[in-house]
Amino acid sequence: MAYFTTRPENGRHFLQIPGPTNVPDRVLRALDNPTMDHRGPDFGILGKRVLEKVQPVFGTQGPVVIYPASGTGAWEAALVNTLSPGDTVLMCETGWFAHLWQEMAERLSLKPRLIETDWRRAADVPAIEEALRTDKAHEIKAVCVVHNETSTGCTSRVDEVRRAMDAAGHPALLLVDTISSLGSVEYKHDEWGVDVTVSGSQKGLMLPPGLSFNAVSEKALKASETAKLPRSFWDWKPMIASNATGYFPYTPATNMLYALDTALDMLAEEGLPNVYARHERHAEATRRAVRAWGLEVQCAEPRHFSPVLTAVRMPEGHSANALRATILERFDMSLGNGLGRLNDRVFRIGHLGAFNDLSLLGTLGGVEMGLRVAGVPHEDGGVKAAMDYLAGNA
Amino acid sequence: MAYFTTRPENGRHFLQIPGPTNVPDRVLRALDNPTMDHRGPDFGILGKRVLEKVQPVFGTQGPVVIYPASGTGAWEAALVNTLSPGDTVLMCETGWFAHLWQEMAERLSLKPRLIETDWRRAADVPAIEEALRTDKAHEIKAVCVVHNETSTGCTSRVDEVRRAMDAAGHPALLLVDTISSLGSVEYKHDEWGVDVTVSGSQKGLMLPPGLSFNAVSEKALKASETAKLPRSFWDWKPMIASNATGYFPYTPATNMLYALDTALDMLAEEGLPNVYARHERHAEATRRAVRAWGLEVQCAEPRHFSPVLTAVRMPEGHSANALRATILERFDMSLGNGLGRLNDRVFRIGHLGAFNDLSLLGTLGGVEMGLRVAGVPHEDGGVKAAMDYLAGNA
Amino acid sequence: MAYFTTRPENGRHFLQIPGPTNVPDRVLRALDNPTMDHRGPDFGILGKRVLEKVQPVFGTQGPVVIYPASGTGAWEAALVNTLSPGDTVLMCETGWFAHLWQEMAERLSLKPRLIETDWRRAADVPAIEEALRTDKAHEIKAVCVVHNETSTGCTSRVDEVRRAMDAAGHPALLLVDTISSLGSVEYKHDEWGVDVTVSGSQKGLMLPPGLSFNAVSEKALKASETAKLPRSFWDWKPMIASNATGYFPYTPATNMLYALDTALDMLAEEGLPNVYARHERHAEATRRAVRAWGLEVQCAEPRHFSPVLTAVRMPEGHSANALRATILERFDMSLGNGLGRLNDRVFRIGHLGAFNDLSLLGTLGGVEMGLRVAGVPHEDGGVKAAMDYLAGNA
Amino acid sequence: MAYFTTRPENGRHFLQIPGPTNVPDRVLRALDNPTMDHRGPDFGILGKRVLEKVQPVFGTQGPVVIYPASGTGAWEAALVNTLSPGDTVLMCETGWFAHLWQEMAERLSLKPRLIETDWRRAADVPAIEEALRTDKAHEIKAVCVVHNETSTGCTSRVDEVRRAMDAAGHPALLLVDTISSLGSVEYKHDEWGVDVTVSGSQKGLMLPPGLSFNAVSEKALKASETAKLPRSFWDWKPMIASNATGYFPYTPATNMLYALDTALDMLAEEGLPNVYARHERHAEATRRAVRAWGLEVQCAEPRHFSPVLTAVRMPEGHSANALRATILERFDMSLGNGLGRLNDRVFRIGHLGAFNDLSLLGTLGGVEMGLRVAGVPHEDGGVKAAMDYLAGNA
Repeated sequence: MAYFTTRPENGRHFLQIPGPTNVPDRVLRALDNPTMDHRGPDFGILGKRVLEKVQPVFGTQGPVVIYPASGTGAWEAALVNTLSPGDTVLMCETGWFAHLWQEMAERLSLKPRLIETDWRRAADVPAIEEALRTDKAHEIKAVCVVHNETSTGCTSRVDEVRRAMDAAGHPALLLVDTISSLGSVEYKHDEWGVDVTVSGSQKGLMLPPGLSFNAVSEKALKASETAKLPRSFWDWKPMIASNATGYFPYTPATNMLYALDTALDMLAEEGLPNVYARHERHAEATRRAVRAWGLEVQCAEPRHFSPVLTAVRMPEGHSANALRATILERFDMSLGNGLGRLNDRVFRIGHLGAFNDLSLLGTLGGVEMGLRVAGVPHEDGGVKAAMDYLAGNA
Repeated sequence: MAYFTTRPENGRHFLQIPGPTNVPDRVLRALDNPTMDHRGPDFGILGKRVLEKVQPVFGTQGPVVIYPASGTGAWEAALVNTLSPGDTVLMCETGWFAHLWQEMAERLSLKPRLIETDWRRAADVPAIEEALRTDKAHEIKAVCVVHNETSTGCTSRVDEVRRAMDAAGHPALLLVDTISSLGSVEYKHDEWGVDVTVSGSQKGLMLPPGLSFNAVSEKALKASETAKLPRSFWDWKPMIASNATGYFPYTPATNMLYALDTALDMLAEEGLPNVYARHERHAEATRRAVRAWGLEVQCAEPRHFSPVLTAVRMPEGHSANALRATILERFDMSLGNGLGRLNDRVFRIGHLGAFNDLSLLGTLGGVEMGLRVAGVPHEDGGVKAAMDYLAGNA
Repeated sequence: MAYFTTRPENGRHFLQIPGPTNVPDRVLRALDNPTMDHRGPDFGILGKRVLEKVQPVFGTQGPVVIYPASGTGAWEAALVNTLSPGDTVLMCETGWFAHLWQEMAERLSLKPRLIETDWRRAADVPAIEEALRTDKAHEIKAVCVVHNETSTGCTSRVDEVRRAMDAAGHPALLLVDTISSLGSVEYKHDEWGVDVTVSGSQKGLMLPPGLSFNAVSEKALKASETAKLPRSFWDWKPMIASNATGYFPYTPATNMLYALDTALDMLAEEGLPNVYARHERHAEATRRAVRAWGLEVQCAEPRHFSPVLTAVRMPEGHSANALRATILERFDMSLGNGLGRLNDRVFRIGHLGAFNDLSLLGTLGGVEMGLRVAGVPHEDGGVKAAMDYLAGNA
Repeated sequence: MAYFTTRPENGRHFLQIPGPTNVPDRVLRALDNPTMDHRGPDFGILGKRVLEKVQPVFGTQGPVVIYPASGTGAWEAALVNTLSPGDTVLMCETGWFAHLWQEMAERLSLKPRLIETDWRRAADVPAIEEALRTDKAHEIKAVCVVHNETSTGCTSRVDEVRRAMDAAGHPALLLVDTISSLGSVEYKHDEWGVDVTVSGSQKGLMLPPGLSFNAVSEKALKASETAKLPRSFWDWKPMIASNATGYFPYTPATNMLYALDTALDMLAEEGLPNVYARHERHAEATRRAVRAWGLEVQCAEPRHFSPVLTAVRMPEGHSANALRATILERFDMSLGNGLGRLNDRVFRIGHLGAFNDLSLLGTLGGVEMGLRVAGVPHEDGGVKAAMDYLAGNA
């Protein structure tokens, strides 16, 4: 049971939205330690340790700025540190979160140039390359890509975006949102030449919401020196300066840093390659279940299948929200809703973070029983298909 | 992850032994509160509250003694408070735990008279009645029955035992072990005329091990006045005297009482009849899965099927322990081992305590995949059978 | 012990900086509950409850915006929601935090007009009135006041500021920072005609850092419709719109809301007037101790004495930082350092939040022994003076 | 605040009874971990680790039996494992707890031979020696001594008792109760030739109540082979047999073992000699405070001053219980009551377990203010005397 619920508790709620994810007990027991003096000698040691340990998860040796703020803030930080009012940014509308980022850009007085998709695939790399090639004047100052689009379950190929930008010989910055992929999907900030990687605590990092991140390239740092958007809370400069000794320019979210420290240990103990493989495996098992049910995965492009969530399309004439309500009521499981144009058209199964085979079976079992109870046309055998796959793949 | 584990954590361990059960977060968060002065004014208020709230779970309006000791101690307490050295007790060897209680009786210088079973059914009521009828001299001072035999998954009909005793017109005390049934299976200490009900914290009460109970009838209290077995720690008299004001004669397990207070609230919020129905439903779903696998339930008597655990017989020539090791290694689930003569012959699935449909599906899925991985001959379809049942039965 | 420390633990660390304060166990046990679905039906009920319960602490019946960000962010929010680039704001430099807010205003392209002080008193009300009277053109768009200046221990009279503004007949907005006063010092957002009250979680609200607040007047809301500073994360409009049903436009800091809910219950249980009186009483006891030591309180104006912290001036030639290091090393207590121009010149004793008489005596005892060990000239008798006062004042 | 309280919480309750002591946050966060399978492979590793780590605290290389029961049970265990009905035991009535142990011995059909004291000093070693010398027939089977008498604050010299027994050439077993001394006062089970050391979790070990201990010598083990008192739950034999692989013969108090593991780490990190010195130092500071108040310490023999608690005698005509009630009401501190013949005549200050200088000053300050508020005749200056001592003694 969470802190607040309106029903009696019997057994553990299945929180299978694509984030916030299930926070491990070990992380909750770090989180709830007494708050310490953020200016005392011990804090600097802790701060340095956390700042160093977070780098490998981003695949970077450069600075990672940690904000005492939720993920949406880190989107804003990426923009205001690198851009100036009126700057053009190339954005790929892969789904609802890409759309929200674009709205934010507009509110911050930037000019998004939009590459649309059908919300069934990830970022359109050829279109990005084409847009950059035609931008001879280099009006585009940044390319913004959502690595894992949480609303659709499509994962963009950031490495290909990088290659397209290089091929086009365009100097724009590359800003990538990894809020729902970091710590779950392989990611290489340095190797892929990303300039700002935006992330949050409440997905693959297995923390509650309340921390967010900007991994920052040299090029981005340089851009920040001339970027004109007003900024103070989000400003990298005093952050990076203070971080050198493990401190922060204003009060950090101390308890969340405790939790982050522990979560990073857990990722390291499992080994990042194992973590990524686990997510791939659970995603494949889930898609097999969906196909066995005779339902359709929202992501139409196998190369873009998300390792962290699967959005499932409802049969015509059936309500995803009614199904989700039934499943919550009868089986005490929370699934993700459809967002924006997908409202009521898809439901989303989160299979990321602190998760394992048997919890996945419980999750898929809840969906399969829910389809039946809610009278949604489907075939049996989803859970069986998942078991067939999982039992054969260690 | 528990406090100690030798493997990296990914997702929640499935603790599906038939106890200790999964302790709800809410109970753990009561348990970990600062210890208080057990002689201060507030403690008495808490003590009274807990002592009153525990009564309905036993189905009694009489005293319930709470020991700061694990369940085995409450077995001893039931014996030493009511009996004298050399007393004959009639015991029904329904399985390993009944056997252990008998061993204890012998060590305490009692003389158990044993009714044997094949460990595939619960207490043999006709045999009890027969034994009592032939005991014209009333040498038998107590009849000892294990309500739910955790080693076999057979639940005795305590109401029938009572009727048999009445039919035989025998004055023996009725001592019942409800360690693995209390809070999960309907139980009526007063109505069934039980004299001492023995229980523990770590099963249906959803607590860690460390508390145990004796519900005590008037008749048992009277017997304790003349019982000659030496006793001090277990002595009811100073306990019941102190309990009148909510205190204890020696230091109670304060933090466990916090946890008990919260667990009792949870049972009351769900409603005991709902709790019992939930356990019955999960047991039925489990047995359907077992049958679908083509395996055999250890309990051979449907009237004795346990609502809290199901012991499953292994096909000839296959090792239950090897299967359990495979399931632990591959799917991070703990199942119960076979005990005594059932060692390696059965594995036991706990489906009691803080538990729900989706956790049951994960559990059964783990067994089904484990059977496959371990090469145990079986049919598919266990999880499906459980889903068919659960989806149709709210 | 906090989560991280470099020394063995023996007993509880005394965290007596003026915030973050000691988080009560009860709040930590709310904080560490499993994260829930922030879009599910239960969340809306929780959200509404918290949003309503927080209003009395601000003394408002209007909206209180809760940010998943630390207090510095709420400063920024107050500015960007109400002002436009180039706007003049009247700021009273009462100390380090007022100075930081002014720096922020500059970075956000505002034009602070500064009223200086000697950092030994609170906001200079006559100077504010004078500045407003002379601003015939109404260039000043907002008056910014720090209610409790954490760097000096001076508390401004916000009611007097309001009267001065009214007397000057000036239409500027009144923005007040209550980060270190809210929940500890009486505060009346509505009655005092404050337009934006800025606050944070980690002081009188007894939470870890990570939440911050804007209480917003009708007038401020109106100003936000025309304010031109770019904003997205901090934008009140979508926040207040979502809050109507208990939800948030982007992922809230769920676990911190659990903690807030509990902390608000605790304040209500004690009763806000009692909370305020407790802080006044501890502050008076502390000042009596300081005087008995023959040391000087940094705040030179009794009407401005802070109820939440006391900054103590070091005798000439003695280092506050050396004293603090000695006290940390020998007595495991963290005290606040001197900030800005007061660095090494004062140390600050926090006596706010979850605190009581005996913890105050421990705190003052640690200071008194520290002065002795560090060889700082002083008189004995500080703790005695505090005891004399506390024993006589229930 | 503890889990249950009838008053609003403001700041931390001072739990200064001589046990249960303040459980460190770190221990509470071990305690509240999910319960694990006590028969699984990981448990054995944990079990062995804890069983080994506990030995140095007892000063033994022999077996230490850990009971899932509170301390009173370990008293019973020491007796029933080594003695037979009707055996004579020599007991020294140093206070209330020695008295209770004697009552237990009687209830268990043993024959205590009593050495009385005035409850103002520890075990009377010459009288023990004398009693043994005159027991030519070696009727005395065991000498029972309470190491630290919690009711009086007198600590017996176990080494001297040993020497007296040797001098008398008497073969009796030496049974020592260290419930309130273990982990706080130097103790050497092996070196001092103790046969059974009884202890509990809730004092120097900094755990909640619920675990207890018997450290067992070779000689005691041998005695247990012929001891005739009936026993089962307390029987050492199956315990020591199971412990060899880290397991227990019946369900252990799993979560308390987590807590014990952590508490033992904490003692080792501080270093046992440092732990003992810390307790001595706080006891000396407390006695200086008592003397400064003009009050009398109950322990009349400086060689027997307890390092863990100080019992303070009330001036004639004044009620200790009224004083304690005043202090609880006004200053939220729990002090120990007078027990048995000392009821209302003394109050007891616990200064053991997780404790430090500043908490001691808060404690003594609470007493000093309480004396004043309650109108108990006394001099000022107790806290000052303690500070004088503590500031000069690192």
